[in-house]
Amino acid sequence: MSKSNVSHDFTETEVARLADVCVVLSHTSHPGNIGAAARAMKTMGIADLRLVNPDVFPSEIATARASGATDVLDGAKVYETLEAAIADCVFVVGSSARGRDFVGETKDVRSACVDAIAKSAQGKVAIVFGCEMSGMTNAEVALCQTLAYIPANDAYSSLNLGSAVQVFSYELRMAAGLTQGYEAPEFQLATQADIERMFSHMEQALTVSGFFNPENPKRLFPRLRRLFNRTRLEKEEVDIFRGMFRSIEENAARGRDGSS
Amino acid sequence: MSKSNVSHDFTETEVARLADVCVVLSHTSHPGNIGAAARAMKTMGIADLRLVNPDVFPSEIATARASGATDVLDGAKVYETLEAAIADCVFVVGSSARGRDFVGETKDVRSACVDAIAKSAQGKVAIVFGCEMSGMTNAEVALCQTLAYIPANDAYSSLNLGSAVQVFSYELRMAAGLTQGYEAPEFQLATQADIERMFSHMEQALTVSGFFNPENPKRLFPRLRRLFNRTRLEKEEVDIFRGMFRSIEENAARGRDGSS
Repeated sequence: MSKSNVSHDFTETEVARLADVCVVLSHTSHPGNIGAAARAMKTMGIADLRLVNPDVFPSEIATARASGATDVLDGAKVYETLEAAIADCVFVVGSSARGRDFVGETKDVRSACVDAIAKSAQGKVAIVFGCEMSGMTNAEVALCQTLAYIPANDAYSSLNLGSAVQVFSYELRMAAGLTQGYEAPEFQLATQADIERMFSHMEQALTVSGFFNPENPKRLFPRLRRLFNRTRLEKEEVDIFRGMFRSIEENAARGRDGSS
Repeated sequence: MSKSNVSHDFTETEVARLADVCVVLSHTSHPGNIGAAARAMKTMGIADLRLVNPDVFPSEIATARASGATDVLDGAKVYETLEAAIADCVFVVGSSARGRDFVGETKDVRSACVDAIAKSAQGKVAIVFGCEMSGMTNAEVALCQTLAYIPANDAYSSLNLGSAVQVFSYELRMAAGLTQGYEAPEFQLATQADIERMFSHMEQALTVSGFFNPENPKRLFPRLRRLFNRTRLEKEEVDIFRGMFRSIEENAARGRDGSS
């Protein structure tokens, strides 16, 4: 019997934390990336998208790439400046692929998202992404309290904007404690007595079949025990093996009858 | 003086671990997603891409989306079946957005990647992604030892394929210990004696300027100390404040001279 349980009992606090996160895309040149960012945000439960001077918006390309996340796009607010976009925020993290001068502190995306979620208890927090080609301007960097990087290949560190938003959104969700997914189907485990009976039966069956010689046991059963101990055997599996051993015994008996 | 240091002294073991990871895309329908996956892999230092029966490959669309990661595309191997693609692997993780029956175990992407990197000490490990619309088939799931999910919004859990590959690749890199990025520019910190002299100077300047009344100090200096203690003051910053206080004192002196 399989019992596949998806258990998403999130506390209100956890969900509220993501409600206090906004993603700010500054001077995005490709509308497709705005759509990809909206989709990435929505998969992680983040809804507040803010755009600073996008080249093209709204756009059919953005809507197509957003897939089912058009509600995030529809709700997006457009601003003239980054200052205006983050005016209501109590903590601002800038995503940057390279080090910059005069920033408060730099952290990896995981630590920065843990900080942001902690600060979100006091108000809105923003994650800012600069334009695709050159990233944030120095003036934009100066508005961030923390600069965050995604650890990357030194020789090729340029994540697609949608991918970068996905990694940040994922880490924000993890930091908010929303780490659950589905669970493995649950089957009834065998008891230790079931398993010992299986081993006795196995020894008997393999003996009558001629595969196992009790006079010269070698390391066969220790190895088999090692294998089965690793697997936390289920009741149904023990039954399958018992059936297999019965069949081996019957065959061996028929063989003896035939040759007798 | 700023000293911006990017310190990527990875051990050979860490880099080798990613060399033993392969990404398998099964029955991918959009060539753009193959390109996006190649780019995502390369940003995280993963090179071994395997394709099971892609609808269209090679493709100009894939090459365009791969951006600078065409070497990963060029090196991609194409297979008829998933069995063939993972024949040399000692551990196979399937990426799945929903629970499935008859799989060994299920884990979140972070734990699954920690496991995969640990197992990579013994040989190739594979992360398998099914086709965009329906995910892996049941027969493909049955070939995986572990099923891994990216924790996601229950109401909208469908990550773009490239984004899913990005999150897995990122977690593999983190699990391999390649967590470094740039560091904050480092400035010489002030000593405690520098800071105490600054506070004496501040008290003096704010007293002569008339802002601070030593007879009725209230909570002014405890609040200012609280602020400055939080910031780990740098030597240059202390010098800036000392200059500011000198200027306040000079103005106050001129005011007294003028009024005398």
